[in-house]
Amino acid sequence: MNPRLAAIAPSLLRAINARKRPGDIDLGLGEPTLRPDVAPFEAAMERVRRDGLPYTPNAGLPELREAIARYHAYPGLGEAANVCVTIGSEEALYLAIKAVLDPARDEVLIVEPCYLAYPKLCALEGVRHRSVASDASDGFRPSAARVLDALAPETRMVVINTPCNPTGRVWPAEDLRALAEGLAGRPEPVWVLSDEVYRELYYTSAPATSIAAYHPHALIAGSLSKSNALTGLRLGWLIGPAGEMAEAIKVHQLVNTAASTFSNHVALEIFSRPEMLAAHRPLYAHQRALLTTLLDRNGITYAPVEGAFYCFIRLPESLARDSVAAAGALLDAHRVMAMPGVAFGAAGEGWLRLSWVATPEALATGIDRIAEFFADHGG
Amino acid sequence: MNPRLAAIAPSLLRAINARKRPGDIDLGLGEPTLRPDVAPFEAAMERVRRDGLPYTPNAGLPELREAIARYHAYPGLGEAANVCVTIGSEEALYLAIKAVLDPARDEVLIVEPCYLAYPKLCALEGVRHRSVASDASDGFRPSAARVLDALAPETRMVVINTPCNPTGRVWPAEDLRALAEGLAGRPEPVWVLSDEVYRELYYTSAPATSIAAYHPHALIAGSLSKSNALTGLRLGWLIGPAGEMAEAIKVHQLVNTAASTFSNHVALEIFSRPEMLAAHRPLYAHQRALLTTLLDRNGITYAPVEGAFYCFIRLPESLARDSVAAAGALLDAHRVMAMPGVAFGAAGEGWLRLSWVATPEALATGIDRIAEFFADHGG
Repeated sequence: MNPRLAAIAPSLLRAINARKRPGDIDLGLGEPTLRPDVAPFEAAMERVRRDGLPYTPNAGLPELREAIARYHAYPGLGEAANVCVTIGSEEALYLAIKAVLDPARDEVLIVEPCYLAYPKLCALEGVRHRSVASDASDGFRPSAARVLDALAPETRMVVINTPCNPTGRVWPAEDLRALAEGLAGRPEPVWVLSDEVYRELYYTSAPATSIAAYHPHALIAGSLSKSNALTGLRLGWLIGPAGEMAEAIKVHQLVNTAASTFSNHVALEIFSRPEMLAAHRPLYAHQRALLTTLLDRNGITYAPVEGAFYCFIRLPESLARDSVAAAGALLDAHRVMAMPGVAFGAAGEGWLRLSWVATPEALATGIDRIAEFFADHGG
Repeated sequence: MNPRLAAIAPSLLRAINARKRPGDIDLGLGEPTLRPDVAPFEAAMERVRRDGLPYTPNAGLPELREAIARYHAYPGLGEAANVCVTIGSEEALYLAIKAVLDPARDEVLIVEPCYLAYPKLCALEGVRHRSVASDASDGFRPSAARVLDALAPETRMVVINTPCNPTGRVWPAEDLRALAEGLAGRPEPVWVLSDEVYRELYYTSAPATSIAAYHPHALIAGSLSKSNALTGLRLGWLIGPAGEMAEAIKVHQLVNTAASTFSNHVALEIFSRPEMLAAHRPLYAHQRALLTTLLDRNGITYAPVEGAFYCFIRLPESLARDSVAAAGALLDAHRVMAMPGVAFGAAGEGWLRLSWVATPEALATGIDRIAEFFADHGG
């Protein structure tokens, strides 16, 4: 057996999930409950009827790679050669970590709380990693200063996520610019791997900006999973400088050859009418308004919900030392599933992550019960 | 950059492919030219219209895992827990090498000539590997004795491929049994990773048998790519003991989450009518008969074509020392693309691989031209 696997802890999210009973209110989900538009599938079916389903080139259909590059329009990253089509954003993260780092010397710095695949992928690849905590007392606002302060001489990659799972925060443009400026002064390039899988789901006045707008050593992971309720399509992308992408594509080719040709065609349909990428946002914005109304009415403290479909809520003092126990008690006694903050790293201890893609009725009932649970514990 | 990537040589197959001009006869292809049955896609579309396209569990739809296990019916490997649904057989190979070996101590022994992903995946994962050559003078007949003779104390995995790309040979049941018996005497378990992606395409009197029938430490890679002309579906599987599969699924989850839900549903349709897996075999058998007639008529020496859709042909003496140069000259002067044997490892030098999925007319013209080319060089 590969000894690295033994060192990777099983998922706390999964452990909680396994305790769910029928009838429980599920505010734990990590995937959209909306239905995807079927039209792009009908178009892809036409292709299958006409051409069968041969391989795409390893890096994906050239016209899809070009469409993805043009849609994002990051400076210097606008060509097909800047894109590899991947098996969701998960593979994009893997390729970035696998291709550009030297496990013998490089270190990764991960902003926490975070999606725990980042440290686990580092562990899988034998890459040293450390975390830097966002400031809970500032609602987990992303901060360039905190990241720059935490850099070590061997840090060669910083992993950020904007909009963020689990906090719902968005990196402000001024902090992205400050991060790029701080990194520009480093003797060796420091990559910023930015997970932008929730890019289309923002509730700020303008779309979330990307580190790729400011920093030449940026690698951007994205997918159609969240924007278009297409988690099962397994269609994502990694965007970056052509030289690094060539190395990432070498890995991609060896580990899975290519993404599904059918999924490539579905994606090509969507990128040919890019307004489809934004189609679900108003629905989420509406649900988010309901969420914050419910939270405010119940006096629950939460981090500002600027993007994604999560909300990080603060546990009352008496529960704050053990979010796993709190999530367990909430599930057992009040039949509401929420995720313990510590499942997203030590920086998340004392908080719970709510997913708010449930029906409005379930969301209202769930939040009422949480408020009751908190009240029972002095919250 | 990851220094391991620099050490992985670019593909010779790709270099030759890049030299192809319009109008050249392509006997180099590694994918079927038949059209897939569209019916399973129509059924999968019904699912999308009804349920959208959520994630499957990481290891694939439980009913598909069970159907794959039951269809193969390998002793002790007949449950869903013995199967991980993968992104084609390529990912299955990757998962096997990544999950069960300890790069710090284990060595892999690879039977050559072979699909070069095996040594490249070892190189990518930092796993030591050696090759053992099949006997060209015996038409590359697979041999347990040669493998057992080549074992070293640190060998923990043997990679075989039956039916074999590029030789077209099938491992005889008696050699699989002898291999299992030889390995049974080893102080530590030696895994046999068997690539069975061409399993359904056999031209022997009985189906190809599997090492899994004889050896408890077997890992089997397969997919729908070749049997059903569905290379673009990217739907494969790894089959093995439940403990090792749990580790492989851990890797799978981290590197790409899951295979396409749509592809899972297409595959489930096919496994619900398993006769679909054998539907293309008669067409290949027919084309193979044409191939051997053409080769025999032209006096070309070849390894027995027992499976897959390749044929390994011997270069005349004057060309045998450099199959890359021979393939280049054949392409430039006679406009026929065939793959140099050395592209499948040193054991393949002196031979060319023909793929015989072209139209009957193209195949006949191609072989005539090869015969002419050989005659020009004293063959």
